[in-house]
Amino acid sequence: MTPRPKKIAVIGATGSVGSSVLDICARFPDRFEVVGLAANSDADSLLSLAGKFGARFACLADPLCDEESRFRSRGVELVSGAEGLSWLAGLPEADHIVFASSGTGAIAALQRALCADKDVSLANKESIVAAGPWVMPFVKRPDQLRPVDSEHSAIWQCIRDEPGGTRDVRRIILTASGGPFRDWPVGRMQRASPEDALAHPVWTMGPKITIDSATLMNKGIECIEAMRLFSLPPEKVGALIHPRSLVHGIVEFSDGTSKMLFSRPDMRLPAASALSWPDRLPIADEEEFRTPPASEWELEFREVDPERFPCFEIALEAGRRGGAYPPLLIGADEVAVEAFLGGRIPFLTISNIIELVMEKYSGPQPGVLEEAIRLIEEGARLARAICAAIGG
Amino acid sequence: MTPRPKKIAVIGATGSVGSSVLDICARFPDRFEVVGLAANSDADSLLSLAGKFGARFACLADPLCDEESRFRSRGVELVSGAEGLSWLAGLPEADHIVFASSGTGAIAALQRALCADKDVSLANKESIVAAGPWVMPFVKRPDQLRPVDSEHSAIWQCIRDEPGGTRDVRRIILTASGGPFRDWPVGRMQRASPEDALAHPVWTMGPKITIDSATLMNKGIECIEAMRLFSLPPEKVGALIHPRSLVHGIVEFSDGTSKMLFSRPDMRLPAASALSWPDRLPIADEEEFRTPPASEWELEFREVDPERFPCFEIALEAGRRGGAYPPLLIGADEVAVEAFLGGRIPFLTISNIIELVMEKYSGPQPGVLEEAIRLIEEGARLARAICAAIGG
Repeated sequence: MTPRPKKIAVIGATGSVGSSVLDICARFPDRFEVVGLAANSDADSLLSLAGKFGARFACLADPLCDEESRFRSRGVELVSGAEGLSWLAGLPEADHIVFASSGTGAIAALQRALCADKDVSLANKESIVAAGPWVMPFVKRPDQLRPVDSEHSAIWQCIRDEPGGTRDVRRIILTASGGPFRDWPVGRMQRASPEDALAHPVWTMGPKITIDSATLMNKGIECIEAMRLFSLPPEKVGALIHPRSLVHGIVEFSDGTSKMLFSRPDMRLPAASALSWPDRLPIADEEEFRTPPASEWELEFREVDPERFPCFEIALEAGRRGGAYPPLLIGADEVAVEAFLGGRIPFLTISNIIELVMEKYSGPQPGVLEEAIRLIEEGARLARAICAAIGG
Repeated sequence: MTPRPKKIAVIGATGSVGSSVLDICARFPDRFEVVGLAANSDADSLLSLAGKFGARFACLADPLCDEESRFRSRGVELVSGAEGLSWLAGLPEADHIVFASSGTGAIAALQRALCADKDVSLANKESIVAAGPWVMPFVKRPDQLRPVDSEHSAIWQCIRDEPGGTRDVRRIILTASGGPFRDWPVGRMQRASPEDALAHPVWTMGPKITIDSATLMNKGIECIEAMRLFSLPPEKVGALIHPRSLVHGIVEFSDGTSKMLFSRPDMRLPAASALSWPDRLPIADEEEFRTPPASEWELEFREVDPERFPCFEIALEAGRRGGAYPPLLIGADEVAVEAFLGGRIPFLTISNIIELVMEKYSGPQPGVLEEAIRLIEEGARLARAICAAIGG
């Protein structure tokens, strides 16, 4: 029944999203054959994964890695650097490329994969938020680009097969757990420590993204991403706090009907949807994936409080302005979060710094991809200068 | 942009579902042209509706009505009886026939409409529950038969565009408000009066269906209907109590993902979906149809308690057995509810009577439609005999 396995290459294979993708591939060896793997610089893990999955092609994005002969001795062809990544993304032996790395290093590779008509699963925010105008035009057909983030996957699953597509969409809502501070008195948040902010109630993730969840910057960035991915105007994209993290996205249609996508909060589920579309994998009988009992659903939703989560509105405004502002936002946020994690600024100052960067910028709008990427660095530079000025 | 209006005929035009359908038609005269209307015997209302919508064809299902000349003088061609109804359902001037009447009187007309390749919107339970095996084979193409009940519409909207169709469905869940007794101590339910049972918390409907909601028989019958409409085995169809009645149906897929359909509890919304498919009508900006604010959602779900709602399990069992049992169930329920409304039996005795009918029946399985319809009468006859025997 199943035709030949889909041949998959995973960029960002050693990270947490990459692991979720590979977990699904490992469960269905008759459906998925992992032919290529890329990591940034962790050669040992990459080689071990290549061995486990029988992948014949590998890439280390860090151009300084010199591991070719070690990989070759194990039957794996290794390439490196941004060019190697693009080569892997266009690999004739692969049908489907997964972009699970963070940062901007894989944007050219993403363009390459789309140009080469590969199916693409995408969990990299920067390539859409900062570089959307230079990536989305390469999408050739519906469902070629499949989101892996649980929120965007939810929206994709609720819209993709509607006969009217996005035409009949009144608004979409991404859900946010609300992070550790959703119930804190606002006055106390200024004194929140990095430890407080890192105690995410639902998802276990790296420190940067966990802080972005505590400020709701992550949700704001995801809203910008949704505007680009689904070609929706900013006023049709919003978010709600949903503490249980069981509903991941909601699409409200013009006729007053809404669809909600519901599942356990487990990255492997949206990864499975992206990899296996148009099929759905038979995994719900396994306890770890099964829908929890109805008595545990408690589906509560709240509006995002702008006083508690100022970063959310700053991000939406960057999305509305477009152009230089989304990349500036990403760069400024990176530096501000780093300063908070380093104990150099208080929690609520994160949003002040980012807002100042947005206000301060008066340069040109990006005309080409390289300028958009440089604007991330410019956002970071401006944020560093503000941090230094306030002694952070 | 809109092509020529769809030409609609509404059977059961003077009832509550018919009114919802006509409310939607009246809002979009450029999209819907009402060409035919049918009622049981209320000639005055029918003629008035025909005038309001400019319908040129009408039918009174009651064969004893003699109103032809009065209708003709107003430019409306009137037919009558079951044959008239079938004629209206096959009307060359109509594209889309709505079956909004209750009972079995329109089953032949429904077969006729499907045979004539009309689009069909269906809100008549008996034709699927009692007569499904003689109706469903006439469905010629996907989405030809569109449910108007909010629960079945919800399931339809969540399944219809899935690439895998029902193949990837793990189970479907219809929601039930739980009626007025959802929070009563079970011990008190035996003393529930007709007035208690008629106080439905969400929907305003006729007395029979309101009692069926209080016993959850209505939800059990809807589960049988869902098995037939979506060709799902009984073990894949269930229900949950959902007091807010905002989520109408849930489809859980094999990959652990579920879709929920959410809207205000207003029959006009599923009616609009059925009429306008594949478009969605732009009505959500109107206050009466707009999704309530997120703070009011409170989406709570509970399993159906079999002790409180024995009718639900009796109906599911009838669905599992199939054949004679769904029509027997419908007939027995009608009589038992009537006896309760007349003050002749206590509330919990409704289920006892229906269960006894199911156990007592030992006749043949129906081979043709007429036998299935006769089994409804047989169920009623057996229930009447039991009522008489217990002095009800």
